[in-house]
Amino acid sequence: MSFTIIPATTDHAAVINSMTHELAEFEKLPNGPQLSESEFREAIAEKNLFGFVALIEEQIVGFVMCYYGFSTWQGKFIFMEDLYVRPAHRKGGIGKALWKEVAKVAYEQNLRRIQWTVLDWNTNAINFYKSIGATDMHDRDGWLDFRLFRPAIAQFVGGNSENGV
Amino acid sequence: MSFTIIPATTDHAAVINSMTHELAEFEKLPNGPQLSESEFREAIAEKNLFGFVALIEEQIVGFVMCYYGFSTWQGKFIFMEDLYVRPAHRKGGIGKALWKEVAKVAYEQNLRRIQWTVLDWNTNAINFYKSIGATDMHDRDGWLDFRLFRPAIAQFVGGNSENGV
Repeated sequence: MSFTIIPATTDHAAVINSMTHELAEFEKLPNGPQLSESEFREAIAEKNLFGFVALIEEQIVGFVMCYYGFSTWQGKFIFMEDLYVRPAHRKGGIGKALWKEVAKVAYEQNLRRIQWTVLDWNTNAINFYKSIGATDMHDRDGWLDFRLFRPAIAQFVGGNSENGV
Repeated sequence: MSFTIIPATTDHAAVINSMTHELAEFEKLPNGPQLSESEFREAIAEKNLFGFVALIEEQIVGFVMCYYGFSTWQGKFIFMEDLYVRPAHRKGGIGKALWKEVAKVAYEQNLRRIQWTVLDWNTNAINFYKSIGATDMHDRDGWLDFRLFRPAIAQFVGGNSENGV
């Protein structure tokens, strides 16, 4: 079945928000997503997030969402946050086509890299990434991702708790 | 010796660019940095990068550079790109003070997280991060960083080489 890919707009905020939750379920991290639908709409309107949706007969069956980062080594780049195709529509090239749209944006804007994260058990995804020449940064140099979440931020800036600062 | 921390401006572009190279040497990745001084100046002017510099008697002895990212799970966040203190001025609390300025920005803007990467052999840094309650995302969930660099981007979008598309 043929599909179409179009840029994501604020009209797609609700379905993208839903699919973000479906993706988090697949990733076995169902409590990850914390944004509301209106936060999604605002992020797309303000271009904090941009991306594409895949359609089959006017039904949205997949999406990709990205933002721009800025590296002190390589300048402006695209971070690919989420890419998802609903299970019934997999293996038909939709995921690769969504990736290609992102790569086209990076190519046309002369960016030096696209970056993303993947779970180490997701071998299907990792094999695809390697097939297109992607680099595993932990494997190459030993890079690890660290995060300081809000309770630790609050503690670090001087308070004992979120309300104690 | 006492130090001062002030927001980085375009006036600091040259010394920040130099220290980025010093940091890359320490990281054993001397070929990492690819930006020119003027690209640094432009990035600071356009607020693609922001951060702070540490001064001792008007000499710049350290810096931190960040950008804003936007997560589909947690909204706007700070990515801490580079933090560096020149060797002669270490162990005096400058690094922690630079980190704290970044944490204050995140706290005051009500952001849900600060994010960064660290090399897995840099145990001094990792121990400090753990001491302030940071989370190792590979350790917690298995997240790995992947990148598609420009030659692979060009190939993926349809050409055989950088010039062949």
